Amino acid sequence: MGYSLSHAYGTVLDNPDLITIAVAGDGEAETGPLATSWHANKFINPARDGAVLPILHLNGYKIANPTILARISHEELESLFRGYGYKPYFVEGSDPTEMHQLMAATMDVAIKEIQEIQQEARSHQGGLLNRPRFPMIVLRSPKGWTGPKSVDGRKTEDFWRSHQVPLSGMHDNLEHVQMLEDWMRSYRPEELFDQEGKLIPVLKELAPTGQRRMSANLNTNGGLQRQKLRMPDFRSFAVSVEFGKTEAENTRPLGNFLREIMRNNPSNFRLFGPDETASNRLNAVYEVTKKAWMAEMRPEDLDGSELSQEGRVIEMLSEHTLLGMLEGYLLTGRHGFIHTYEAFAHVIDSMFNQHAKWLDISKREIPWRAPVSSWNLLLSSTVWRQDHNGFSHQDPGFLDVVTNKSPDVVRIYMPPDANCLLSVANHCFNSTDYTNVIVSDKQKHLQYLSIDQAIKHCTKGIGIWDWASNDDQGVEPDEPDIVIGCCGDIPTREALAATAIIREEFPYIKVRFINVVDLFKLVPDSEHPHGLSEVDFCTLFTPDKPILFNFHGYPWLIHKLTYRRTNQHRIHVRGYKEKGNINTPLELAIANQIDRFNLVIDVIDRVPKLGSRAGNVKERMKNNIIESCNYAYEHGKDLDEITNWVWPY
Amino acid sequence: MGYSLSHAYGTVLDNPDLITIAVAGDGEAETGPLATSWHANKFINPARDGAVLPILHLNGYKIANPTILARISHEELESLFRGYGYKPYFVEGSDPTEMHQLMAATMDVAIKEIQEIQQEARSHQGGLLNRPRFPMIVLRSPKGWTGPKSVDGRKTEDFWRSHQVPLSGMHDNLEHVQMLEDWMRSYRPEELFDQEGKLIPVLKELAPTGQRRMSANLNTNGGLQRQKLRMPDFRSFAVSVEFGKTEAENTRPLGNFLREIMRNNPSNFRLFGPDETASNRLNAVYEVTKKAWMAEMRPEDLDGSELSQEGRVIEMLSEHTLLGMLEGYLLTGRHGFIHTYEAFAHVIDSMFNQHAKWLDISKREIPWRAPVSSWNLLLSSTVWRQDHNGFSHQDPGFLDVVTNKSPDVVRIYMPPDANCLLSVANHCFNSTDYTNVIVSDKQKHLQYLSIDQAIKHCTKGIGIWDWASNDDQGVEPDEPDIVIGCCGDIPTREALAATAIIREEFPYIKVRFINVVDLFKLVPDSEHPHGLSEVDFCTLFTPDKPILFNFHGYPWLIHKLTYRRTNQHRIHVRGYKEKGNINTPLELAIANQIDRFNLVIDVIDRVPKLGSRAGNVKERMKNNIIESCNYAYEHGKDLDEITNWVWPY
Repeated sequence: MGYSLSHAYGTVLDNPDLITIAVAGDGEAETGPLATSWHANKFINPARDGAVLPILHLNGYKIANPTILARISHEELESLFRGYGYKPYFVEGSDPTEMHQLMAATMDVAIKEIQEIQQEARSHQGGLLNRPRFPMIVLRSPKGWTGPKSVDGRKTEDFWRSHQVPLSGMHDNLEHVQMLEDWMRSYRPEELFDQEGKLIPVLKELAPTGQRRMSANLNTNGGLQRQKLRMPDFRSFAVSVEFGKTEAENTRPLGNFLREIMRNNPSNFRLFGPDETASNRLNAVYEVTKKAWMAEMRPEDLDGSELSQEGRVIEMLSEHTLLGMLEGYLLTGRHGFIHTYEAFAHVIDSMFNQHAKWLDISKREIPWRAPVSSWNLLLSSTVWRQDHNGFSHQDPGFLDVVTNKSPDVVRIYMPPDANCLLSVANHCFNSTDYTNVIVSDKQKHLQYLSIDQAIKHCTKGIGIWDWASNDDQGVEPDEPDIVIGCCGDIPTREALAATAIIREEFPYIKVRFINVVDLFKLVPDSEHPHGLSEVDFCTLFTPDKPILFNFHGYPWLIHKLTYRRTNQHRIHVRGYKEKGNINTPLELAIANQIDRFNLVIDVIDRVPKLGSRAGNVKERMKNNIIESCNYAYEHGKDLDEITNWVWPY
Repeated sequence: MGYSLSHAYGTVLDNPDLITIAVAGDGEAETGPLATSWHANKFINPARDGAVLPILHLNGYKIANPTILARISHEELESLFRGYGYKPYFVEGSDPTEMHQLMAATMDVAIKEIQEIQQEARSHQGGLLNRPRFPMIVLRSPKGWTGPKSVDGRKTEDFWRSHQVPLSGMHDNLEHVQMLEDWMRSYRPEELFDQEGKLIPVLKELAPTGQRRMSANLNTNGGLQRQKLRMPDFRSFAVSVEFGKTEAENTRPLGNFLREIMRNNPSNFRLFGPDETASNRLNAVYEVTKKAWMAEMRPEDLDGSELSQEGRVIEMLSEHTLLGMLEGYLLTGRHGFIHTYEAFAHVIDSMFNQHAKWLDISKREIPWRAPVSSWNLLLSSTVWRQDHNGFSHQDPGFLDVVTNKSPDVVRIYMPPDANCLLSVANHCFNSTDYTNVIVSDKQKHLQYLSIDQAIKHCTKGIGIWDWASNDDQGVEPDEPDIVIGCCGDIPTREALAATAIIREEFPYIKVRFINVVDLFKLVPDSEHPHGLSEVDFCTLFTPDKPILFNFHGYPWLIHKLTYRRTNQHRIHVRGYKEKGNINTPLELAIANQIDRFNLVIDVIDRVPKLGSRAGNVKERMKNNIIESCNYAYEHGKDLDEITNWVWPY
């Protein structure tokens, strides 16, 4: 639905010998994603990239309507494409032979112009003075061309009636059957096929062979030409950690890792983001490469705009165009990474769905298609830190969309800290044929795991943190009184803070603390290849003890993933419930009840040994909630004891 | 995110005295939704509609980047907007006083031109010969205008650094504090406020009063001017029904109902769809009004294109633009309806989310805002009938996105037949301040309820169909052995067919048959205002009997909605599991196990009285599955006994 042009632009990045022809229908040209993707020409450097030759195919009609672009004046149409930065050529008519010659001649002109632009750009050093105007072609031909001119007295060729099925009633309408026969005979099959119905040799020879066949072309079956990334050792970007005491921005070390990946792989790795590479703390990449920019540059841009004609970061405020370009880049055998604000991933829900469906079929049913690099998406600037933006920027629901797609192709990772993010990202960059979604906030957060611990934890995907638990301290192992699960950075911190309170207030209560990185671990192994077996799930979460789960996203997603589990009716989930504003972190947590104090109350309500015996503690928790909210309202920030909280053990 | 312009276009439809000024930032102008919404000018009739005066505000920068439109040549920019069909004016500069005069003068010229276009169009009969070129303004002014020119020696005004917070460190950077003071003093507050800090009277008098205030303007608080629809009696469009035997296209009677609504309400109801009004069987509306079209018309359009300058149906292949226009139309106090193919509703997920968030806050926290008509969306051409389109058109997951939003504003209806659809639609058209999502397929389906039965069933939202059940036939009521629930047209038919098999094969098994129209009935009343109380839920579904639920959407959505229910661990759900292709209806049902035969197997596996006793029946069901699939594969259609199946009782 309108992504073809951005895909095409993705195929030619760092692919200087490739000219991709992208045919855009005039129906899809009405969609938003296509309407803005014409501007992708501002990111194409004729020296280092190939070129796209877009063909706008004006056949004039959709299912039941004319198209807008076919019904504006020639002058407007030409003006529009000049405005988009192209040099438009028009190929218009309805006589097949004439049109064939006209199209071939125009293609020759366009390809020659592209080659001249490229030769000019490649023949001198120091960049282009002027952004080139690449050609594009407007092809105006009849819809249903060479089909029935009219059916039952109603205009069909060159009209919307030729959409889909121009002749109906093939079982009983003899007149239509005759028209179908006349139509098919108009192509003179007796001259094309021999008496056995086989294509005659002279025509058969026209078909290309080997890699000239579309399916075997290295740019269409891009996995064939995919080179593994030259990966730096991700462990060298680790932060040093004292459990629950160190603070760091979770995404910044990933930026350093990306910088070295981009340094090592200067022509087959690209980073895409809608104007947020710096905001999401990935700006270390600019030490190696800048943002691609072929439009005008000004002197002041030298101070921090990070623009360059040679840049390999693409920033445009269109998630549609970016994702389309990333997909085109991956499908031609390269590697890439896209990141966006979590709430705005919904802009590309439909694109994600279509890519996941394509990947699912491609992987399961098309054995000759070689694996391509995974589609790696980082969601940052997440729901739980909205100190400036608020309610409109709070939506962790992209995960709900992702979990609807085939388990053969979807993966979701929610690393709780910087080292886990490094480990997860390293895994994703090396993988093929998945859509990997990683959720990690960019702000300063508590750190938990050393890089070696992180590797073990992320490889398992789920695990008990015995640093936080106290159910393993007797001589013989015992069942915990409560299992506290968590997933996501802020929910993990609040779950830990709640655990600390419980251990202090109720030292006789045995707490097991479990963190989830790989969300699909929660699903039975019969439903998803990453799922835990029922035995493993019960060993971790117990078959019969209460479970409190503090989740990053909408709470019911956890129920959706665990509804087949033995102990599922004892899983009590906290998560985002559409409550929020421009809040301090604790206010936001309290509004949705994922905060430490509400979690302690949840534990009191669920552990039989506590209940009314813990009435005083519950009262204190309620007091803490009121005090915290009042302080945040008055001072616009959280109490220091909250902001500076560290794990006390 | 890029919807402001389409909103503006919606406000002026049928609003001839309104000129809406829409300011589009050059950041959002990079988004797809905005890039195509410039074309909405092709639907504006200067005789019957008002006008939009778009202002593209080129302040040149986003968070950390220049914008594309600010860095292309003046010639390209002008060409682009001429191509979009506008007459562009440029207001460029940085001296506030000069710019104020220049902007005011340009506004005067633009408004005058709009008025001339309108007077011309309104002064003669018979339609316009030429589509008018409305003016638009390109306003190029510095970002962070009149803020600090530079901070710490780095350019700030007229650069991206002025985004968000130009001066940081207000707690300890005294130099920045001084700059802030100088900046604020540059506005000469001593001339604007009196000694008590109040605005001086001469300035205070400039503020408009009454309905000239933005919040009290009848077009911005549109609920104030909303007129109730003049509704025809929806019952008069009912189809006559013999339970489970009659067939009809479910959406066609809705088309007749819409036709009369549009006839009765010729200036405050609009229908929006992306080229699918006829495909979705709503084309009866064309008997009353056509599709709005101000672009070129051709003689052949008179035969079925249904175009007219006076049309009140809007079709454009951009769900973003359509939904934006609908929202603008509703927010100015009118009524409307939008419909699209189910799978492509994901294109507007993000727009839905933002509207639902806005509505939630507006309703709960802004008492002076008057209620507006509900946002009514029909999803048709659904997942279960993909005889032509296949896998890419199968995605019932929009419901998963909807169920994440506030229960105060979201409603989902899944009427099983034509009369239920009429009843539901009538309810939605009369409601305010909701987002109503209705799912109903357009193909021929079995009909179940007379209009009087439909009204009762839809008003309850969920109910036992005792026509299909056999658990209420003894002298004293008894518990059923199995509860069969269903939701959606095809799942209802398959559940009924399974029930018929069970009643024939196992006459001693008591079946209770429940159909769900209002999806939120499944949620506890503590979680959603439509939710059933726990007592009512248990009365319907029993506290302890097996439940088999055949669902239209992804099966886990039912678990998400019912996870708090007493008997939830006995609910076995069938639904769409991402299995599909271009299939016959039964093939598709079998691939996802929502078909009659698999449902009978599910019942055998869950009812203790059956199990191994029913081994022979299970074997026959498996044989039926194999036979049905083989026949469909060979003949491209289902066995006649499937296609022509009717309820046998």
